[in-house]
Amino acid sequence: MNNFTFYNPVKILFGKGQIAAIANEIPEDARVLITYGGGSIKKNGVYEQVMNALKGRSVTEFGGIEPNPQYETLMKAVSQAKSEQIDFVLAVGGGSVIDGTKFIVAAMEFEGEEPWDILSKKTPVTKAVPFGTVLTLPATGSEMNSGSVITRAETKEKFSFGSPYTFPKFSILDPETAFTLPQRQISNGVVDAFTHVLEQYLTYPVNAPLQDRMAEAILITLKEEGPKVIQNPQDYDAMANFMWCATMALNGVIRVGVPTDWATHYIGHELTALHGIDHARTLAIVLPSLLRYKLESKKEKLLQYGERVWGVDAGTEDERIEATMQATIAFFESLDIKTKLRDYEVGQDTIKEIVKRFEERGVKNLGERADIQVQDVEQILTMSL
Amino acid sequence: MNNFTFYNPVKILFGKGQIAAIANEIPEDARVLITYGGGSIKKNGVYEQVMNALKGRSVTEFGGIEPNPQYETLMKAVSQAKSEQIDFVLAVGGGSVIDGTKFIVAAMEFEGEEPWDILSKKTPVTKAVPFGTVLTLPATGSEMNSGSVITRAETKEKFSFGSPYTFPKFSILDPETAFTLPQRQISNGVVDAFTHVLEQYLTYPVNAPLQDRMAEAILITLKEEGPKVIQNPQDYDAMANFMWCATMALNGVIRVGVPTDWATHYIGHELTALHGIDHARTLAIVLPSLLRYKLESKKEKLLQYGERVWGVDAGTEDERIEATMQATIAFFESLDIKTKLRDYEVGQDTIKEIVKRFEERGVKNLGERADIQVQDVEQILTMSL
Repeated sequence: MNNFTFYNPVKILFGKGQIAAIANEIPEDARVLITYGGGSIKKNGVYEQVMNALKGRSVTEFGGIEPNPQYETLMKAVSQAKSEQIDFVLAVGGGSVIDGTKFIVAAMEFEGEEPWDILSKKTPVTKAVPFGTVLTLPATGSEMNSGSVITRAETKEKFSFGSPYTFPKFSILDPETAFTLPQRQISNGVVDAFTHVLEQYLTYPVNAPLQDRMAEAILITLKEEGPKVIQNPQDYDAMANFMWCATMALNGVIRVGVPTDWATHYIGHELTALHGIDHARTLAIVLPSLLRYKLESKKEKLLQYGERVWGVDAGTEDERIEATMQATIAFFESLDIKTKLRDYEVGQDTIKEIVKRFEERGVKNLGERADIQVQDVEQILTMSL
Repeated sequence: MNNFTFYNPVKILFGKGQIAAIANEIPEDARVLITYGGGSIKKNGVYEQVMNALKGRSVTEFGGIEPNPQYETLMKAVSQAKSEQIDFVLAVGGGSVIDGTKFIVAAMEFEGEEPWDILSKKTPVTKAVPFGTVLTLPATGSEMNSGSVITRAETKEKFSFGSPYTFPKFSILDPETAFTLPQRQISNGVVDAFTHVLEQYLTYPVNAPLQDRMAEAILITLKEEGPKVIQNPQDYDAMANFMWCATMALNGVIRVGVPTDWATHYIGHELTALHGIDHARTLAIVLPSLLRYKLESKKEKLLQYGERVWGVDAGTEDERIEATMQATIAFFESLDIKTKLRDYEVGQDTIKEIVKRFEERGVKNLGERADIQVQDVEQILTMSL
């Protein structure tokens, strides 16, 4: 096992009816800004529950945070929040609203020239306004970590940041808030969470059997519960299990002491930035090719994954790995998530553009062995055509 | 899945060489009190590493915290710490030193009449002096939770308390600090951690498949790594895996949203209080009888446990449960942990004494269904004779 540091102070309040508990978690005299997305929370009763819980408090709101939250939009929220002297932000939504809110609370306290530097220059965040979340879409895990991914529309760039100051103070996970999600978002969520686990698991063995089994526990549970949720999004238990899997997939628990990959995410972000393809779908496009391309160096974990998650235990090593790849792709496709660039009408031109961007930015040494260079990215994407 | 709250702000620094990191975790101007036990840390180099890390700081020490830490001893530490105006305590040791330190830091700030009330009357802790830990004995999980069990020698009473103020600020988990442990303590640690998991897992199903699999992940890993550690306590990877299992067994992760039992611990505490039997051994005595006594209401989880942890998948339900019980007992015995009261020269008299105590204290409604009464405790202990 590798040395590690683990720290996650997010308080989770899980289950039906928990939105009312925000009243105890937000200081009574705080000036609260509620952030949200396209307004679905005003249709499904979540907004009403939040406002009821905060009755009598000082509350204003900022809506319209888009999927792949944009710097330009978020800076408007920063300006509003500053002028309103906001001292607590409550994000109500999915990963985009929560990621966006992490940036808002950091940018509100940013003392440098332009908050974009937090993303482009990795200028460290040294303080942030406190915030909590009400999660309405199980997927990204953002509700229980300190990371965030932000897009700049102007330049079509998508960058991430994280800091010990951008952990939510609390997150409300009420599975009932997700009952009205469209199937597309549920499918995306299952694949997003599943890929988060694979990025931390399909690397190379370092004698960390507990972490391996915990990762497999999430994968198997997603495999079982994902289709149930799609079948019936109002199946409370299935939604609860899916929701908790998505949170556990990226809260640090399975990452401790093991190598992690993240090249799939890194490459996938470009497809979203350039073509607006849903984040989870970019992962489903890149992952299979990346696994095949790095098959030799991931062989031991691929065999273990195949056996323990998909029950693949017969045949030669090559046959087992192929069966495992097929099972993974079939799982994505069964959720109506296509896994080829052509399915999204993306071709060779985009690969050239991504390679050019990576060369300009000096991107190199991706993956758990830091051995994926720009020319490897080109080949991986070509395999995904 | 049941509703739940999860909150665990303990920062974990795991791996060899991590003791040096305490310098960054303790405020530079803090007046530090180091607490420890019988002095093994002065023989195995841990004390030296700690003192080197804190060179130039204001440091005093309080040693002699015994196994099953005693109120009488801890109150001496409280008095010393107050007179020295200590503002950070560093516990260096196993679960007893850490549990004892949690009581010390709470008692230092206690404003009622007698700090014993925190234990006997469950008077809430409303503040505590901050503390960190350097763990030297994987077993209790105290390094990553806020609970503590304290014994009063005078009255032979053993009570627990916990509070949001008694989470360690950080815990150092360096497997090398455990290389010189006697086999007896390693065996105790494996059984303690294993039983912690079973208390949170062998109840009844609530459709929480992820929590189930995570509990099983710890059990299987303990089953595999425990014997390796006993074979060779200087096997770094085995010790690291055991250490992380013991922490994960009681840091709240596997407890979320599921019923928990804890009757075995409750009853076992009396055997330690009256006869000084090692805590883990009391669990190994009580657990098998309790499982047999509550077999009907635990049947579904017992069958699942047998199949997933011990590979018991043939025979009638009764046969499979019996095979599962035998496998569990054989595992304890293979670690040289005896599972009958007679092995510890304890007989009927002690059962009478425990029943009397429980009647006097009005103990009732133990277990995950709150259906274990004093007369059931008597029968369970009789089955353990």
